[in-house]
This record gives sequence, C-alpha cells and structure tokens, in this order.
Amino acid sequence: AVSAQTSLTLYGIVDAGVVYERGGPAGNLTKLTSGVQSGSRLGFKGMEDLGGGLAAKFNLETGFNTDTGGLGQGGLLFGRQAWVGLGGRWGDLSFGRQYTPHYELLDQVDPFATGLAGNAANLTSTTPRMNNTIKLATPDWSGVSGELAYGFGEVPGNNTANRQLGASLGYARGPLMLKIAHHRIEDGTGSDNARSTLIGGKFDFGMAAASLGVGLNHGAGGTDNRDYMLGVTVPVGAGAVLASFTRKDDRSGLNAGADQWALGYTHALSRRTNVYTSFARIYNDPGAGFTAGNASEPGSGDKAFNIGIRHKF
Amino acid sequence: AVSAQTSLTLYGIVDAGVVYERGGPAGNLTKLTSGVQSGSRLGFKGMEDLGGGLAAKFNLETGFNTDTGGLGQGGLLFGRQAWVGLGGRWGDLSFGRQYTPHYELLDQVDPFATGLAGNAANLTSTTPRMNNTIKLATPDWSGVSGELAYGFGEVPGNNTANRQLGASLGYARGPLMLKIAHHRIEDGTGSDNARSTLIGGKFDFGMAAASLGVGLNHGAGGTDNRDYMLGVTVPVGAGAVLASFTRKDDRSGLNAGADQWALGYTHALSRRTNVYTSFARIYNDPGAGFTAGNASEPGSGDKAFNIGIRHKF
Amino acid sequence: AVSAQTSLTLYGIVDAGVVYERGGPAGNLTKLTSGVQSGSRLGFKGMEDLGGGLAAKFNLETGFNTDTGGLGQGGLLFGRQAWVGLGGRWGDLSFGRQYTPHYELLDQVDPFATGLAGNAANLTSTTPRMNNTIKLATPDWSGVSGELAYGFGEVPGNNTANRQLGASLGYARGPLMLKIAHHRIEDGTGSDNARSTLIGGKFDFGMAAASLGVGLNHGAGGTDNRDYMLGVTVPVGAGAVLASFTRKDDRSGLNAGADQWALGYTHALSRRTNVYTSFARIYNDPGAGFTAGNASEPGSGDKAFNIGIRHKF
Repeated sequence: AVSAQTSLTLYGIVDAGVVYERGGPAGNLTKLTSGVQSGSRLGFKGMEDLGGGLAAKFNLETGFNTDTGGLGQGGLLFGRQAWVGLGGRWGDLSFGRQYTPHYELLDQVDPFATGLAGNAANLTSTTPRMNNTIKLATPDWSGVSGELAYGFGEVPGNNTANRQLGASLGYARGPLMLKIAHHRIEDGTGSDNARSTLIGGKFDFGMAAASLGVGLNHGAGGTDNRDYMLGVTVPVGAGAVLASFTRKDDRSGLNAGADQWALGYTHALSRRTNVYTSFARIYNDPGAGFTAGNASEPGSGDKAFNIGIRHKF
Repeated sequence: AVSAQTSLTLYGIVDAGVVYERGGPAGNLTKLTSGVQSGSRLGFKGMEDLGGGLAAKFNLETGFNTDTGGLGQGGLLFGRQAWVGLGGRWGDLSFGRQYTPHYELLDQVDPFATGLAGNAANLTSTTPRMNNTIKLATPDWSGVSGELAYGFGEVPGNNTANRQLGASLGYARGPLMLKIAHHRIEDGTGSDNARSTLIGGKFDFGMAAASLGVGLNHGAGGTDNRDYMLGVTVPVGAGAVLASFTRKDDRSGLNAGADQWALGYTHALSRRTNVYTSFARIYNDPGAGFTAGNASEPGSGDKAFNIGIRHKF
Repeated sequence: AVSAQTSLTLYGIVDAGVVYERGGPAGNLTKLTSGVQSGSRLGFKGMEDLGGGLAAKFNLETGFNTDTGGLGQGGLLFGRQAWVGLGGRWGDLSFGRQYTPHYELLDQVDPFATGLAGNAANLTSTTPRMNNTIKLATPDWSGVSGELAYGFGEVPGNNTANRQLGASLGYARGPLMLKIAHHRIEDGTGSDNARSTLIGGKFDFGMAAASLGVGLNHGAGGTDNRDYMLGVTVPVGAGAVLASFTRKDDRSGLNAGADQWALGYTHALSRRTNVYTSFARIYNDPGAGFTAGNASEPGSGDKAFNIGIRHKF
C-alpha cells in the first residue's frame, strides 16, 4: 500500500484483406474485409505493482472493422475484452468480459489460430467470450495450470438462468502442450444447457508442429455432435505453411456434419507486419450449411480464399 | 500566438464488483457489474499554454461497462464529458457536453460520491450532465467561486424549449465547504420546467468529515419534493468508513417519499487501486419505488450490497 | 524482415462553436455545435519502417460530436478513416475505409476546406468516404501525382452493384495546383450509376490565394447538374479572411439550382488553436432546398452564422 508504478500500454492490430467466397446460396462474393487473419483491434492495458507480489491489472480491447470503420462484436466498445483484476503468487483473479477457457484452447491448437479461411471455428463449436465473469487463472505449477470462470446470468429471481461456466486444465513443457477445456451455458429458464468439452494437444517437432483437437458438444434441446481437428504448422524461412483438416461429426441423426480442408501461408515482413493467404473448402452433409469464414466474419459459401496484410502495433 | 506546449493525458478508471440486490419485484439479483464505486471510464485530456495567462483545454471521456464491454450513457462515445475551452485569469469558458453544477455539488457532499450502494442519487433528484452547453467557471476569489452553465434546447423556432440552465456559488476554505447550486430544464414546449436547488456543506473535523445536503425540487407538471442528506466519512488507516442517511420528502400528496440508510468501506491498496464494500437499505413510502443502485446502474430492489475493486490509471 | 521501428501517434481536433441558422422551414435555430470548422476527431496512426524503402502504415480516426459526446458518421467507431497499407518508392497502397479522391480535391480548393458556414459542399456534390476500398496513390513525379480507388460493392452474385470507383490526376508546383478528380457509384442493381467529375485549381499570389472548382454531376435516374466555385484566401496577420461564391447549376429542368455567398475569418491563438467566424447565404431556385451547414451538420436554413474555437492536439 505504498507508492506504486502504473504502466499504460496502447496496442493493436490492423488487418485487411481481399476475400473470395464461393458456393453461397446468393452467389459468389468478393470483398475487402477486416480482420481476416486476426480481428482488428485497439487495446489499452496496464499493470500496477502493489507491492508484496500483488499487482492490479486491466485490459480494455476494442474490436473494429477496417473496411467500414464500424465496431465489431455487435457494437460493443470493448467487445473483445474488458476486465480488471488482481494478480499474485496464487494466480490471477479478474472481473469483466473475458475469453472462455474453451475458446482459448481452440485458438491454441488451431494452426490458423481461429483466423483466415481455415479457421477451425468454421465447424468447431465454441463460445469466444463470456460477460459478467469472474475468472481465476492459476500460475504455472511445473507445467500444470488451470482456469476457472463463472459468468453470472443476471436474471432476477433465477440465479441459474443464462449463467455460464468455463474451466480448463493443462500441461505445457518444452515442445508438448496438452489441455482439456469445458464450457457450459444454461438456457434462459435454467432448466437446460449447452455444454462443450475440448481436448487439445500440440507437439513441436522443430521442423513442424502438429496439433490435435477433439470436441464433444451437447446443445440445449438435445443436439449432439463431435469435432475433430488435425493441424500442422511448418516454418519456411520468414514464413509458415499452415494446414488443417476439421470434421464436424453429427450424432443427432440430422445428417448435419461437415469436413473442412484448409491451407494457408503467412509471410513476415517484420516482427510486427505480415502478409497472408489462405484457402478452405468445406464439404457439407445434406443437412448442414457450414461456411468458410475468417477471424471476423462467418463467410457466405463453402469455399473461401484470402489474401491480405496484418500489422501489429 | 507564439510557440506553444500541448500535453495529452490518457487516464481512466476500471471498476468491477459483485452486486447483490434484494427486494425487487422480479426477485433477487446477483450480478457482476461495472462502475460500482465510480463509473468505468477512459479519458483523453489536454492543455495548451497559449501565453499571456491563456490556455486551451479539452476533455473527452468515454464511459463503458467492464462487465459487458458496452458503452455507457446510452451508447455515446464520450458520454461522460466532451468539451473544449479557454482558461485564463478570469476563469474557464468551455463548450460541449458537461457536468451540471447541481450534480457536481451532490457528488461533493455525498460521502459515497454518487457511487456504491449508498449513492445519494438513489433518492436525491439531480441531472448529471447537459448537452450543447456553454459553461463559465470563475477562479477562486479568496475561497469564493461560482459556475454558470447554459445548454441550448436546439428546437427550431423555439429558443426556450428544452434548454437547461445551471448555476452554483460556493465558499471553500480550510476544513469548510458551503455551496448552493441550481438546475432548471425547460420542457419540450418551453411553457413548463423542472427545477432543483441544492444547498450543501461539508466540514472536515480531522477525525471525520461531516456533510449535509438539502434539495428543493419542482418537477414539470407540479411535482414537489425535498431531499435531505446527512453524511459522514471516517478515515481508518489505509481506508475510510462512509455512512449516510438520505430522505426524499414528497410534498405532492402522492406519498412517494423514502428513507435510505447506507454504510460503506473503501480500502486503498495503493494510491490508485482500492477495494470497496457497501450496503444500503431504502424504506419506500407506499407510493414510491426507489431502488438501491450504484455509480452506473439504478438497481432493482430496496436493498443492495456491493463488493469490488477500482483501479485508476 | 529485420528489426523494425513502429511509431504510434495520437492526435485529434476538438472544435465547438455557436451556430445561428435562419430561414429554415421550422424556424430559426441557435445551437452549440461540434466540428463547425473541422469535424471533431480522435486519431491513432502509425508507421513501421520495414526496410528497403518499404513501410507499413495505418490510420484509425474517430469522428465525434463535442456537443453531445456521440459518435459521428452515423455511429461508426472509426467513421472518418480506417485503413492499413504499404508504402514504397512506387507510392502507397492502402485498404479500408478511405477518403475519395473527389472529396480530397474539393477540400483542397474550397477556402473553407469543406467546413464553416461557407462549406462548398453545401451545394457541391461529393462523396467524402468510401468503404471496402483499395487505394493506390502515386508518389510525386516532378509535380504530377494521381490516385486510384476501388470500393467493392459486396453484393453476392453481382460484382458491379454498389461498387465505387475514384480517381484523380494532379499537378502541383510552387504556387500552382491543378487537379481533376472523378467519382462513380453503381446503384444496387449495377445497371445505373451516379458520377461526378471535379476540375480544381489554386494559385497562391502571396498576398492572397485564389481557387476555382468546376463540377459535372450525373445522378442515377438522369439528374444532371454542374457546380462552380470561386474562392479566395487572404492572410491577415495571425489570421485569414476566407470568401467564396458557389453555384449549383441544375440542368435537369427541375429548377433546383442555387447560389451561395460566403465570408469567414479564422484567427490563430497558436499553431494549434484558433477561433473562427463565418457567414453564408444561399439563394435557392424555386425547386431547391439547399441549406447552409458546416463541417459536421447539413444545416437547417439558407443563412448561417458561426463563431467558435478549434483546438488541435
């Protein structure tokens, strides 16, 4: 409780590219789009050393669209992240709008990092963020770490309705990462819920990194499906080749699964600026209509090709 | 008109806490909320020395919600403040969206500073901000200072309709502060108005500070009520105990008054970071439905309990 | 692809003034308005040297209203500009929401720089910005430079619908500037379009600068009109006197043209802060209803008078 240091950091990403989408019901679409590889953002974050190993932390992150100047995430100012918290030797406790542990794992194992045409989330079920959330993240215990997140439903008279729960437990050491993550959303009455569990792993062989994800999803109303993702990242000079196969396996009898094949390449112009290209092709089952999107848009057809630039500051 | 210095300062508050609300018509509500003690904000302000005692000044302040990432103040980008002006030996003249002198006084005399469960504005009538406003603030003349604010109604063909007028006159010296403030809002036709006068005082005895507010409110359409607020702030080590009694005295015959008892405690972790807790209980007259809110939300019931963290940067 | 330098610059303008509008259908209007001379804005821009003459650049610029705190440009976060791109010896290639070459020329030749009561755009047809745009700007070749801008329409199945095209070619050397600019907007079916061509020139005689603009406009549906603008800027001590005559010549037989006479004065208090005043009077043909606005608002009547302050940071 003595004199303290605060640091404020402004940072961001401005990403724009040309996207070709084919195979949509309304016809082909060519567009200039924002946040193809990574959602365009402007962030304000800070940390204050409170002494005794304790620190106050915050992060406020705006998502926006470079192509139109509009806000992302449905018009929220800090729609990507908005939280304040305390960090200590026991971990981090934070309050606000935050990433779910489930999405954080998908982002880690997807070679496309949930961006570009090959975004694993084109097929894989996930919930990127949760509101009204208290999150506890443990420190790294010899490679083991975990997260627990609780999001209040905020329905008067019903503490269960609309609440969300997230958790993860992982191990990371040297070239190996293994993690399990879970997310659960109660419906508006608190009597049913949607839940997803993702098991993910990654191994860096040096010449290439391989990753794997298996997801189990039970939706409110009885839907039941599984996700499988196999990915590889191959560093090539100042760039990297990305490839993945993703499968949505529908187990509800609706014949609504799909397969996705994706290939991409990113080339660094500097540590902060890169150009990228990517292609993805989805094969939908007769009852499915999955589309190849990117980090910011869901896409309009079963084929997408991207070319663009991403600058970090 | 010579070379000048401009300074730009980024500042803000990120505040989040758990709020328990009881006694609302739809049932109990537990939530993670933003801006419980102070509205969460991000501000940009600057000053340029123009020479000869003259300075250009501006302040742009965003209000946002840490729990959802959304904009506060109904979606305005700089909904808290947005103004530019000139300062000199004669005072400050500023143009834009600004605080009313009436609200500034209430904020000064309320030990809860219009935040936490004990927010005096749960009962006390006030208008925090006014648009389209020219404000003149005098310098401090041996402890005496005043403000005058005029907000254009901007109704074509009717200069009176919707215009607002604010004014205050105060004295502050050593431990004593005394002030009177007035605010008046013309209705949409310019033929009726709502007006509030607040008389407030504060005395710092050292071991504790006591404050008092008396408000007289006449609404458009003939409503008539008075506000009484008694508050005390007791510094305790790195913290402070806050307590207040607020009374809304309805004089319109609608039996729509209320009493509020409030207690709070804030504890500094550093000069910039503190934790807080607060409790308030409102006793409504049969015709009233006042709710215990906080700095950002009106609340849903007649009882509220808060616990949270506030970080300034 | 080696270590690089990034610079991030925060900048902006806060502008507010009192505007008197006369001659509108609903009566006279007096208001405190934002962005009378220049739209109020807050910007974030940066550049990273990528080596080999190549640089990454971006600009994100928010428009807001000082009088209400609200967002400008219909609620867009970066409604003024949002783009990322690469610059090299061959010019600049940028992607996002950007100014049209047509508007850039009008802004250059108008002594009021499309602000104040005398804003040439009160009568002159122009489109300030275009979305989804790839823009190429050449470097300066012995005084000659040009721009080419293509904005995707983004209508599925119809690449022509809603797309926009802009171009300019200019010469600037010493006191002389000459430029031609064109803008074309396809309609929602891609079968009709609106197009405007502007020829502008400026000569700085030292004691005064004279400027001239001639515009040819063909609207979708067959509208046809021409714009003529004559302007002069006279530096006077720390200030400048601005004057212009603008004429909208309707050639569609609707008798919907108008003349505008405008006078203004800006006075610098420093390099970054100035005060301003301006007056404009529009004489509408029987079929026209043009109004005297300013940099941010279209105005409500055929006469407007402004007085205010603009601070840049």
